[in-house]
Amino acid sequence: MENFKKALAELIGTFILVFIGTGSAVLAGDKIGNLGIGFAFGLTIVAAAYSIGTVSGAHLNPAVSLAMFVNKRLSALTLVWYVVAQVVGAFIATSALKMIASEKGVSGLGANALNGISVGTGFLVELVLTFIFVLVIVTVTSETKGNAKLAGLVIGLTLTMLHMIGIPLTGLSVNPARSLAPAIFTGGVALNQLWIFILAPLVGGILAALVAKYLLNTEASAK
Amino acid sequence: MENFKKALAELIGTFILVFIGTGSAVLAGDKIGNLGIGFAFGLTIVAAAYSIGTVSGAHLNPAVSLAMFVNKRLSALTLVWYVVAQVVGAFIATSALKMIASEKGVSGLGANALNGISVGTGFLVELVLTFIFVLVIVTVTSETKGNAKLAGLVIGLTLTMLHMIGIPLTGLSVNPARSLAPAIFTGGVALNQLWIFILAPLVGGILAALVAKYLLNTEASAK
Amino acid sequence: MENFKKALAELIGTFILVFIGTGSAVLAGDKIGNLGIGFAFGLTIVAAAYSIGTVSGAHLNPAVSLAMFVNKRLSALTLVWYVVAQVVGAFIATSALKMIASEKGVSGLGANALNGISVGTGFLVELVLTFIFVLVIVTVTSETKGNAKLAGLVIGLTLTMLHMIGIPLTGLSVNPARSLAPAIFTGGVALNQLWIFILAPLVGGILAALVAKYLLNTEASAK
Amino acid sequence: MENFKKALAELIGTFILVFIGTGSAVLAGDKIGNLGIGFAFGLTIVAAAYSIGTVSGAHLNPAVSLAMFVNKRLSALTLVWYVVAQVVGAFIATSALKMIASEKGVSGLGANALNGISVGTGFLVELVLTFIFVLVIVTVTSETKGNAKLAGLVIGLTLTMLHMIGIPLTGLSVNPARSLAPAIFTGGVALNQLWIFILAPLVGGILAALVAKYLLNTEASAK
Repeated sequence: MENFKKALAELIGTFILVFIGTGSAVLAGDKIGNLGIGFAFGLTIVAAAYSIGTVSGAHLNPAVSLAMFVNKRLSALTLVWYVVAQVVGAFIATSALKMIASEKGVSGLGANALNGISVGTGFLVELVLTFIFVLVIVTVTSETKGNAKLAGLVIGLTLTMLHMIGIPLTGLSVNPARSLAPAIFTGGVALNQLWIFILAPLVGGILAALVAKYLLNTEASAK
Repeated sequence: MENFKKALAELIGTFILVFIGTGSAVLAGDKIGNLGIGFAFGLTIVAAAYSIGTVSGAHLNPAVSLAMFVNKRLSALTLVWYVVAQVVGAFIATSALKMIASEKGVSGLGANALNGISVGTGFLVELVLTFIFVLVIVTVTSETKGNAKLAGLVIGLTLTMLHMIGIPLTGLSVNPARSLAPAIFTGGVALNQLWIFILAPLVGGILAALVAKYLLNTEASAK
Repeated sequence: MENFKKALAELIGTFILVFIGTGSAVLAGDKIGNLGIGFAFGLTIVAAAYSIGTVSGAHLNPAVSLAMFVNKRLSALTLVWYVVAQVVGAFIATSALKMIASEKGVSGLGANALNGISVGTGFLVELVLTFIFVLVIVTVTSETKGNAKLAGLVIGLTLTMLHMIGIPLTGLSVNPARSLAPAIFTGGVALNQLWIFILAPLVGGILAALVAKYLLNTEASAK
Repeated sequence: MENFKKALAELIGTFILVFIGTGSAVLAGDKIGNLGIGFAFGLTIVAAAYSIGTVSGAHLNPAVSLAMFVNKRLSALTLVWYVVAQVVGAFIATSALKMIASEKGVSGLGANALNGISVGTGFLVELVLTFIFVLVIVTVTSETKGNAKLAGLVIGLTLTMLHMIGIPLTGLSVNPARSLAPAIFTGGVALNQLWIFILAPLVGGILAALVAKYLLNTEASAK
């Protein structure tokens, strides 16, 4: 029951992230620019962290949940619940966006894709940017090194920042759940490159978990 | 007397929200873009929360006050005071804006209206976005799950975010008081569609109050 | 000596506000837009509040210092020191900007002026916007109702917001010290209208001090 | 070992600053504008402060480390470790950016250079802006006058603000490590003017350390 409640919270939170993040990009991207898209995505984290985050921690992202599992903050069973909920939440969000975009006569669902860079570079960019993202998350939510009150704000603004450099390269994913539904609904190149936006964030997240633990000592318990 | 002071605070706060929010859209929208309009609206919440909010809580929005009533944080009598004050504050703001806009030779008062989407979709968009908005508000101001010091900032940035996706669809209301005065002054389509921007936010707010209470456990009292 | 140190802090702070605020408008306004100008001005408050504000409170504005005097947080003597320091800091800032602008071949020093609105409307706009600004300042720095840690951030973001609506109307002053030097250096219309940008903010500030005291109860002492 | 860990943290942090800051300018500058570039740079400080900053303090800048040394918060040996790590981190970042930019067919690496102003003015601009930046940093991280929880956010937003006025004048450095690698890789004018972006920030940082100490009393120890 506890896991079900947490999963439902993650589902709502990931719906917020994907619906408003990719929705802003698709429906308003030409009006708000990349800075506006970055703020849209980043501030969904703020909204989710201070609402459903009080129940689930507001991971909203399998790469984040995997990093928490690696550092033993999440059990294997809860990890599965979280990832399933995140994927379902993202699919509902993309379905809702698809309906709205079709009424507006707008095409595209905010799928990620390499933009004039090689597969290797794209993989490295997503890996490094996810590493930075998860390093911030694991540290700022650490029991001993963290800043619980500000965590949602810090993580959200970090995601905003990553969009500044990431959008022109890959559309910025750093989140397999965010990439999955648009790629499947869109097909084509987005689907062919989907593995990059699943694998690279997961590897970047694991590396961040380990660097946080061994370099930044985030997993030490409070006395 | 206590209710009168609180209502006066809500009146001032809603004046700030509507005068600066819709005023920025009408007088400067072409210069600041949707991102600027979103920040203008969102930061009025910051200003109101940390000033008049110390007396009234800075609801500024009947959907918020109704949600607070549903979760028994507000009595029926105070709810009436609040909603009347919010509506009056919004009318004063729109009247002031009308005078300024007429001197500047600018038409429009920032009324909400469906923009290329069906009534059903518009209703759902306002309902869902208000649900997200009020879910954040009810949680971040919760006695046990909240973050009193940061609440104003978190709520304001959430409102900024909602404008990113909402402006191209409905102009973004999520607030019956914000929609009422411009629709009545403008008439036409805005007036015909006004019921959407009154009803959908109220329903979204009630749903958020219930999800916050039963899923996020926001109404538990501190021991 | 105490007053001298505080005045020096105010001088540095007002230099930061005017140099970077008006400098961004003059040198980069076409690149950053009104939203960027608003953030430039607003974030100077953040920078000043958390640096020189630890000594002087970072008023940076005679309307703010006058409001603090009205509510007995500042003595008459210190008020004089503060206002003189603010004016001197602003003149140094405008002189530095004038030198740089002349090298760049850019004209204008960021003087405030009515833009397509009547004197009465312009006066009211500056009065009301300063009222909002000072109401936030007096409350968020109140011993009993305030939020000392966040005050600088809240005040800065409020100033950013005011620029969204104020720039197209008056260039936004809400601060006699910010308007004085550019008007004197520029002459003409800016100098003829200078009295508006001195008088309206002072009246707005006094009203805010009184509303804060009697409606929001900001001057109650902690037990 | 302690110094090695701290240096590694600084290396990662300066990589984040330079890779995402200059990367956003080079790869997305035409899309995000100067405001977006300012947020990209500023928010890297937020990300670094709340992650690697828990180990090293997140100086990311020799001018900051020198100021900390002047005020005896850093030993001479640790200063050397920090500066070397910052320079190395910046070189890795610029190398990564060079590879990506070359794939995208974009030239330029975000080098700083005087833009239509004299050497003397450019030197003074960088000196004064670094003075403001370091004054904020030294105060907000002070044991007695500071605000440890908000420090990263305040410093980051200050850096964003400095970009508003600085980009059109010098590209804004205020950080020798940020300027070094792009100038060496780019050569030409950037390399000829590099001394300005090394010397002016260092002098500005030292002045800020002294003003913070003697005017703002930042180095007093808590009782």
